[in-house]
Amino acid sequence: MIKVSIIGTGKVGTHLIKACINSPMVQLVEIYNRSLEGLELYKGLTPTTTVLKDLKKADIYIVALPDDVIKTLDLSHLSGLIVHTAGTKSFKILNAPRRGVFYPAQSFSKEKKINFKGVPVCIETEFVGDYGVLQNFAHMIAQNVYELSEDKRQKLHLAAVFANNFSNRIMGIAYDLCKEHKIDFQILQPLLQETFLKTQILPPKVAQTGPALRNDIQTIEKHLNQLKGTDKEVYQILTKSIQEDHGIKL
Amino acid sequence: MIKVSIIGTGKVGTHLIKACINSPMVQLVEIYNRSLEGLELYKGLTPTTTVLKDLKKADIYIVALPDDVIKTLDLSHLSGLIVHTAGTKSFKILNAPRRGVFYPAQSFSKEKKINFKGVPVCIETEFVGDYGVLQNFAHMIAQNVYELSEDKRQKLHLAAVFANNFSNRIMGIAYDLCKEHKIDFQILQPLLQETFLKTQILPPKVAQTGPALRNDIQTIEKHLNQLKGTDKEVYQILTKSIQEDHGIKL
Repeated sequence: MIKVSIIGTGKVGTHLIKACINSPMVQLVEIYNRSLEGLELYKGLTPTTTVLKDLKKADIYIVALPDDVIKTLDLSHLSGLIVHTAGTKSFKILNAPRRGVFYPAQSFSKEKKINFKGVPVCIETEFVGDYGVLQNFAHMIAQNVYELSEDKRQKLHLAAVFANNFSNRIMGIAYDLCKEHKIDFQILQPLLQETFLKTQILPPKVAQTGPALRNDIQTIEKHLNQLKGTDKEVYQILTKSIQEDHGIKL
Repeated sequence: MIKVSIIGTGKVGTHLIKACINSPMVQLVEIYNRSLEGLELYKGLTPTTTVLKDLKKADIYIVALPDDVIKTLDLSHLSGLIVHTAGTKSFKILNAPRRGVFYPAQSFSKEKKINFKGVPVCIETEFVGDYGVLQNFAHMIAQNVYELSEDKRQKLHLAAVFANNFSNRIMGIAYDLCKEHKIDFQILQPLLQETFLKTQILPPKVAQTGPALRNDIQTIEKHLNQLKGTDKEVYQILTKSIQEDHGIKL
């Protein structure tokens, strides 16, 4: 059994708490949150606290808090391994003697359940001696665990912003166009599914289709005339991006 | 039985031929292609021709050819219903007496099979009397058939360019970032899957997450410093797009 405490009950913290409870190999020692409100759900289930100084002894403390809050915490009195879950920050922002990172490469929302087993976890520790402990724990709650240096983790996080945040916004523009013109967005679902499925079997460059790739200037002009503001700029820049990627002269 | 001929053996034509062969209600009368090469596959299976003037009698002729080729065809001698498969063009570009549109809202590639049954088909005819024929045929090869005016079809096509072409390019940028920094792109697959699954249950605006939404200027700056050229412009414009959509002041 490995003893784990979760610091923070936001989106990532909540998913980690569930994952720990669901693993027979993990003993969830304690849950910390700044406010009592954030602990309400867990009372009776496991010990909780709002005072960092009172934290019980654990093997690993996972700090799932906003980046700018992490650096304000004094965790120097804890002898266990302290890891944060941030994609872009060094373990050095933790004020603690034994540090590391436990970055789940997934987007969590309160509206949708997720099976933590399938979440890829990227880990790193300050001291080589701590790596095994973190790796063992990671394998107890997730199937795919990757050792990733800070530099690579930051690049992965950047790639994830494109893959998730930006592609979601792109689909949002498609959604809004349908809504504005009273077209059922469901018509596009098979196309969205196909787009996603192709990323599993083909490099996106090979899967690319459309007017930008064909350099179909007439259709591109027609599309631009139907758009305005930032949507139009998005169309222009992504058309340029596709054409540059395929060596098409503008 | 409905008699159908397919004009053109490109990506869309090939998928339509398969769909017609697989439907017990459709009789595939003939396949036309400009070159003999494009007909090689179908010899022995069904009559083929390279001469438009020789086309046999059919109830529906589906013209699956590039937009600029369609308008050059003389189909004025045919008494059947002639439809094209283009998302952005009016049926008026067809030089034929009875015209319509049969637009499959899907991205077809030679590398990946697709079940036509699941492809949403958007149809339109010049004459009300022809609508029933086209609708009946559409239901024989596809489950979801939508009546869509030219204007709505053009807006849908524009939305599809965002949903498919542009989101594919966005994933391409993520893919290239991983490749450049020797990070396994597989790490991002669960995130991509989650991004896609969310579009089925949540409007993209509700599903939005990330530094742009949080207005996390420090992370945005850090990301921009890691990007150059058009990738950097894509990051900037999509950050702006997300922030405008959520009323965040830049």
